[in-house]
Amino acid sequence: MAEVGAEERRVLVAVDESEESMHALSWCLNNIVSDKFRDTLLLLYVKPPRAVSTALDGTAYLFSSEVMLAIERYGNEVAEFVMEKAKRLCSELGDVKVETRIENGDARDVICQMTDKLGADLLVMGSHGYGLIKRTFLGSVSNHCAQNAKCPVMIVKKPKSTPNGH
Amino acid sequence: MAEVGAEERRVLVAVDESEESMHALSWCLNNIVSDKFRDTLLLLYVKPPRAVSTALDGTAYLFSSEVMLAIERYGNEVAEFVMEKAKRLCSELGDVKVETRIENGDARDVICQMTDKLGADLLVMGSHGYGLIKRTFLGSVSNHCAQNAKCPVMIVKKPKSTPNGH
Repeated sequence: MAEVGAEERRVLVAVDESEESMHALSWCLNNIVSDKFRDTLLLLYVKPPRAVSTALDGTAYLFSSEVMLAIERYGNEVAEFVMEKAKRLCSELGDVKVETRIENGDARDVICQMTDKLGADLLVMGSHGYGLIKRTFLGSVSNHCAQNAKCPVMIVKKPKSTPNGH
Repeated sequence: MAEVGAEERRVLVAVDESEESMHALSWCLNNIVSDKFRDTLLLLYVKPPRAVSTALDGTAYLFSSEVMLAIERYGNEVAEFVMEKAKRLCSELGDVKVETRIENGDARDVICQMTDKLGADLLVMGSHGYGLIKRTFLGSVSNHCAQNAKCPVMIVKKPKSTPNGH
């Protein structure tokens, strides 16, 4: 963790398809990233785990390989689209060193693991994202990370009054 | 909320008796407070609601007035002690304008209300505090605030490796 006098910080920003995550990133660029620290922004996108459909009787049905490939391709396109958008925002709003990382798995666990693995001094994320239904059953990703990540966690909500905030 | 180009920010830090909350304050002073923004630090301490003991059968027993007064006095002393400690930390670690506020009530609700009332651009708090038992039954104060406060929320954990951190 960055201690008194330290001059380098690694700020991990978890990005996803949501407008809120882009808002969190821009808030971070405007309010956290500072010339005083030589900050590195680590942009992390977590793709959901590979699709497996489980029926109610517990039998797992695997999709055909064509469908799997199409889902995989779509997932990669979304990941690239999100990263491009995030990188553009970084260059528009600040002059900061940016690294990107795309991972697979459950966002809850992957984000927490990556704060550790990448040596993050701070994790920044939106309060929602990663789907309403999943959130309803498992609790929000941001709550989980706030409890389980070892570094400080900044949760940024998109204000309702700004419908188009990045 | 502070937008691009804004130069003043009001940072609300919820302090309590815990070492973690002092750690959160010092983290904020080292990592958030910046000369770039003319930050005002709003230190908020929330005293628990007046003591009423409820027995398991639902009957409420009120304490005698002497006991109530003693509890009240103790609560005020704790509040002052916490505020003094927090203000000392602010003057040691930074040159920042500080305002203090002591309120009564359930920390969950009061902290969220005060972010609104005091026009906070950011809320900073520890992840624990406010008692293990209450937290177990009602969920953590920080989770509640991260979900309900309208401004961005920064949750700072005390690292286990620093037993005496601020």
